[in-house]
Amino acid sequence: MTEPVLDPARNLETLLRCPSVTPAEGGALEALQRMLEPLGFEVQRPVFHEGGEASVENLLATRGAAGPHLCFAGHTDVVPPGPEESWRHPPFSAAVENGEMWGRGAVDMKGGIACFVAALARLVARGALPEAGRVSFLVTGDEEGPAVNGTVKLLRHAEAQGLRFDACLVGEPTNPDALGDMIKIGRRGSLSGELTLLGRQGHVAYPDRADNPLHRLGPVLQALLHPLLDGGTSRFQPSNLEVTSVDTGNPSTNVVPASATVRFNVRFNDCWTGDTLRAELQRRIEAGLAACPRGPGAYALRWREPVSDCFVTAPGALTQTLGEAVEAITGRVPELSTSGGTSDARFIKNHCAVVEFGLVGRTMHMADERVALSDLETLTRIYETFIARWFAAHA
Amino acid sequence: MTEPVLDPARNLETLLRCPSVTPAEGGALEALQRMLEPLGFEVQRPVFHEGGEASVENLLATRGAAGPHLCFAGHTDVVPPGPEESWRHPPFSAAVENGEMWGRGAVDMKGGIACFVAALARLVARGALPEAGRVSFLVTGDEEGPAVNGTVKLLRHAEAQGLRFDACLVGEPTNPDALGDMIKIGRRGSLSGELTLLGRQGHVAYPDRADNPLHRLGPVLQALLHPLLDGGTSRFQPSNLEVTSVDTGNPSTNVVPASATVRFNVRFNDCWTGDTLRAELQRRIEAGLAACPRGPGAYALRWREPVSDCFVTAPGALTQTLGEAVEAITGRVPELSTSGGTSDARFIKNHCAVVEFGLVGRTMHMADERVALSDLETLTRIYETFIARWFAAHA
Repeated sequence: MTEPVLDPARNLETLLRCPSVTPAEGGALEALQRMLEPLGFEVQRPVFHEGGEASVENLLATRGAAGPHLCFAGHTDVVPPGPEESWRHPPFSAAVENGEMWGRGAVDMKGGIACFVAALARLVARGALPEAGRVSFLVTGDEEGPAVNGTVKLLRHAEAQGLRFDACLVGEPTNPDALGDMIKIGRRGSLSGELTLLGRQGHVAYPDRADNPLHRLGPVLQALLHPLLDGGTSRFQPSNLEVTSVDTGNPSTNVVPASATVRFNVRFNDCWTGDTLRAELQRRIEAGLAACPRGPGAYALRWREPVSDCFVTAPGALTQTLGEAVEAITGRVPELSTSGGTSDARFIKNHCAVVEFGLVGRTMHMADERVALSDLETLTRIYETFIARWFAAHA
Repeated sequence: MTEPVLDPARNLETLLRCPSVTPAEGGALEALQRMLEPLGFEVQRPVFHEGGEASVENLLATRGAAGPHLCFAGHTDVVPPGPEESWRHPPFSAAVENGEMWGRGAVDMKGGIACFVAALARLVARGALPEAGRVSFLVTGDEEGPAVNGTVKLLRHAEAQGLRFDACLVGEPTNPDALGDMIKIGRRGSLSGELTLLGRQGHVAYPDRADNPLHRLGPVLQALLHPLLDGGTSRFQPSNLEVTSVDTGNPSTNVVPASATVRFNVRFNDCWTGDTLRAELQRRIEAGLAACPRGPGAYALRWREPVSDCFVTAPGALTQTLGEAVEAITGRVPELSTSGGTSDARFIKNHCAVVEFGLVGRTMHMADERVALSDLETLTRIYETFIARWFAAHA
């Protein structure tokens, strides 16, 4: 059965109805495979399951045997929808109202995939893809999860088969408010740590016989948070640390706990590498502990994988081709930015030049995630223009 | 079947083999009933089950119809033994080695009960209890738990039947190192609170759109802990606050949590009442929040029941009779103290004068909790002497 993949809204409807809450495949990669095969793609569906994490399905599809190689990267997994009653339309319904389509993943980022498929289908339909050129889809089900059994392994899998990409476009939602706002050309790095403060359990009525690790929490948190890590650089926002969880799990009101755990994440710019940042954070933790009235106590510090350094794709042919395609369709000149969260571009940049452009992210990760049908059509035309111009520039 | 209750070690062995981990009865109250009935006690076993907590079995036993009324109060529930491999002998085995008996509850406080039963049995055996005198046992299975369905309700239950006590001896382990060290004549009060810091959830990469409650934790903890509440008074140790748990429960390294909970307990002296202390702690919390760079944010503060004020039984006839009994048997003059943790004496003091004296507490709540067999015999003789002298003084 051939899907009518020229229409991005129809493609998206199909994908949205697959409940692919990370790491579940939910039928989404299967649906994508059925869209791509009629367009001449050879599709592989490798499953990765190392690293103590859930096993994850992925998709690698390639069209063409030689020539310049353009890659489109993305993910079909979505974050959990939360309580269904907070949605106006059910999160896997693909309901349409007032020119918008509802659903978890509508903009992050099944919508980007739906548009790229439609763009390619239109180019194939009018014979506008060069003979000597290759296009690949690199799509994972592990972008919203731990990112261990997804893009990193998919890139290694492609490399093992001799596949090399000349450039990659990631279809994440990069526009804050309207299509044409922003192309992302890099991202801050991300480092997550887990600090365990160790003490000695005891009865609250006999504090001298116990050593309460929670009484060292205040100085340690203050040292981690102040002063700010930096003030930002020419290409990047300031680095920022967020404490994401503090947990003790002590149900007894009369017991001093033996330990407490602090989890934190830092988004960091080019003032730092993973190594210099780890050293600075450890220095801050020890300074905070040294300020504790009852002595510094013991601690354990663990860094979580994967750590990603910040990166930037220098403005050049790739960013220019994409920027001109955006301007040609929307009439707007997109900002080249490194702001916001990470994406799998942090892994792809080790293999080829990478840029990111997709839908408007305003409703991503929220209840009532949705996309304007007109945006789907506009993005499809931007992608179509970009693909054609990229191959023209590499002919 | 009549138990040979003259021997405290035999009584304790029976009680230790009942796995009465709070709030389970575990056969312990049943065993106690079978010891008391042959001594002429009428035994009731009321079960209380209000307050959203587990239902709990209790025991109220009375011997005699009129005259001065002496009450012995205690509990058969025990704290969990923890991993059995950390015990030299299994925690419910009552194994004896080198003159010591092993078991969870050996000193806290099945041992105290075993000795008081033996003391009474000896007095009954030699006809030394007066005709015009009453003795009651007030024994709960909810001292180590939330203390909601135990002594408080048992006292009300006794009162509803017209039972009034003239004095009460609580058999908790009061001696730090050796029998004769210490009688407890009062306790600090206890207040537990739960503070929830409220913020706004969001993505760590976009901190301006979120409001991280954990970033207010440091100033709030510092304000709660510093300066110290007071320096102690003539009768009491300093008041002390312990933070017992801080919990967030956020598994995602890329999400700023919406709230965080801080639990704490204060043991407080006669500088404070429950009311003045609550007001001071709330003032400190608000001062800490006011010091937060990104604004004070919202919070919810909940006080946990039961709150107990501190109390002291003025030295007088009761403390003197007990002190003299201790000195007569051990040759040592016990300190009259208000130190340490709470006990159900905090509830009993509203009904009659109350003092506490029991075994050596060194191994309580630890692995390898155990008691010297010689201490069981000594405590039995102290109790026997105390009971006889108390009735003589009230004849």
